Amino acid sequence: MTIDLSLLPDGGISWADASGPDGHIVLSTRIRLARNLQATVFTTRARDQDRERIREQVVGASREAKSLADAAVFRVEGLDRADRQLLYERHLISKELAGLEAGGAVRPGAALVLGGDIGVMVNEEDHLRMQSLHSGFALQRAYAALERLDGELGARLPFAFHPEFGYLTACPTNAGTGLRASVLIHLPGLVLTKEIAKVLQGLSQVGLTFRGLYGEGSEVVGNFFQLSNQTTLGKSEEELLDHLGKIVRQVIEYEEQARQVLLRDAPSVIEDKVWRAYGLLRYARSLSFEETMNLLSGVRLGVGLNLIKDLGVYTLNKLMIFTQPAHLAYVAGRALADPDLAIARATFVRRSLEDEAGRIRPQAN
Amino acid sequence: MTIDLSLLPDGGISWADASGPDGHIVLSTRIRLARNLQATVFTTRARDQDRERIREQVVGASREAKSLADAAVFRVEGLDRADRQLLYERHLISKELAGLEAGGAVRPGAALVLGGDIGVMVNEEDHLRMQSLHSGFALQRAYAALERLDGELGARLPFAFHPEFGYLTACPTNAGTGLRASVLIHLPGLVLTKEIAKVLQGLSQVGLTFRGLYGEGSEVVGNFFQLSNQTTLGKSEEELLDHLGKIVRQVIEYEEQARQVLLRDAPSVIEDKVWRAYGLLRYARSLSFEETMNLLSGVRLGVGLNLIKDLGVYTLNKLMIFTQPAHLAYVAGRALADPDLAIARATFVRRSLEDEAGRIRPQAN
Repeated sequence: MTIDLSLLPDGGISWADASGPDGHIVLSTRIRLARNLQATVFTTRARDQDRERIREQVVGASREAKSLADAAVFRVEGLDRADRQLLYERHLISKELAGLEAGGAVRPGAALVLGGDIGVMVNEEDHLRMQSLHSGFALQRAYAALERLDGELGARLPFAFHPEFGYLTACPTNAGTGLRASVLIHLPGLVLTKEIAKVLQGLSQVGLTFRGLYGEGSEVVGNFFQLSNQTTLGKSEEELLDHLGKIVRQVIEYEEQARQVLLRDAPSVIEDKVWRAYGLLRYARSLSFEETMNLLSGVRLGVGLNLIKDLGVYTLNKLMIFTQPAHLAYVAGRALADPDLAIARATFVRRSLEDEAGRIRPQAN
Repeated sequence: MTIDLSLLPDGGISWADASGPDGHIVLSTRIRLARNLQATVFTTRARDQDRERIREQVVGASREAKSLADAAVFRVEGLDRADRQLLYERHLISKELAGLEAGGAVRPGAALVLGGDIGVMVNEEDHLRMQSLHSGFALQRAYAALERLDGELGARLPFAFHPEFGYLTACPTNAGTGLRASVLIHLPGLVLTKEIAKVLQGLSQVGLTFRGLYGEGSEVVGNFFQLSNQTTLGKSEEELLDHLGKIVRQVIEYEEQARQVLLRDAPSVIEDKVWRAYGLLRYARSLSFEETMNLLSGVRLGVGLNLIKDLGVYTLNKLMIFTQPAHLAYVAGRALADPDLAIARATFVRRSLEDEAGRIRPQAN
């Protein structure tokens, strides 16, 4: 099966449209709730027929949930690898559920229910991983949507809940609320002023953690960090979100201060840096993903500081998504490996920036 | 005194107009003849009044020479340092005569007679250094002009000549013909294929030597080499030029082969390299001279390989000249030091390339 292509080109990436609060610094807010069915073996220890039953139960309940009225349902097993990777590159499915981990495979019974900003992964590490994904810094909005879905599904499914431990989860680190909220934030100012290490160290002291673009285990590229809560137990959902929200607000302020310091102390250095990044993206004929992220980081900083005008943050966010391998393969109509992949990436970036600049320059073909 | 500004913007740089043979690889051909006056102490050991007399004699003869009919005559002492540097940056005066060497000063009696493609430095290391400078690979043309001038001045001035040693010079390495011919050549292909060391080694075995952009002691930047004859004695002028010409012709062929190898074996690497250079020149906000030369080298290779179209070699040659400190200071109307100098350089390069591209891009200001 191939994914309904109405997903493309912008399907499922409204979280990247830069319309949300603090969109110049915060790309997106994601919250997920881990839930499991009572008296049912956890996914990772379940037999295939158990997981099939779990899938049927969860998908059945999802079809009745108002929040998922227009949702598409995918049996992950039925998806081509390229499509699973497309979904992963859009941050709509986890690497594990998509069977994309090294040596991994799609788990029988794995399913994905995909609404607009909201969805459910079925038979991931937990039976249900409900998730809500919003543009910008929008914890309350994302949680409100998720709470509604939790209520709708909880009314139809017997969630495993312990009066002392809260929601039970396959991994004890998720028990309690089952809530993990994360904010994808761009911190080039703190990196350039070399204050980032101090800030990240401070986060761990207040129970927060950071990851790269693609969650656990992924490297930080392009100065994009995912900040999230470390603990899920012992506090209410509201307390967890309130705490994360306050800390992220502070990080945003630090980042804005760092940018002002850069503009004050080294304006020409910064201007040179952001325009060089633009020049390379605009003209390079071969780009690795990592270099692309780093250059996009520079250009994004330039847009944020109003040094580069007439270039939308949404364009830059889309480039982060569409320059990944499965997206480039989709455009090319065939699987790509380097050096073709790097060439296709540079071509895509160049065309996008040319389009955004409003004209195609004759010598830039 | 300030130089007659009719020199600017293109005055004295017809050698850089890329109109000459093999202009895509050879920037210019320069020949000079060293001459001294009989029974007159050499410049470096002369007293001020001796040098004044030498100057009067040589300038007087120059005014009568047909080849120098429209020439301008400058007393170097009377020129501002900025003007002397302008002339030096245009390759029209030596560092020594301009008094620009570290700890150096203008020698009393120093003068410069400046025609179109031809001129005379007076009281340089020798009493006369006649020089002819042409676009492209043009040894015969450059020598023909110089031979004519040599005849015109030789008829009016008693040149020191020894039947066995030929023309006598202050430094014995110049004795004999007093001729040094040099070809300014761009060899990025041989550098990229790593064959350059072998080629340069070969040159020394056949009596040739190489230098950087600004002659003796100057570093090689931007893959620009000055190839010239090592010896001046024991061969006729024709033999020297014929030998140099054959070797340079071979180097040009090696370079063209290297470029074809690059295009055949690594086309996307080369394309990426030349367009990145263009992108940086087009958008950087701060550029050192060395980086500018290296990027211009990349773009020049791209133009030579027809990867970059609609961009003239003359524009690139002019950028090599006009991005030097005295030229940038002239444009700015004041002396410049880094970081202002590097910013002014980037601005000049950007505007030139924008103009060449035929329009000013609104976001590129």
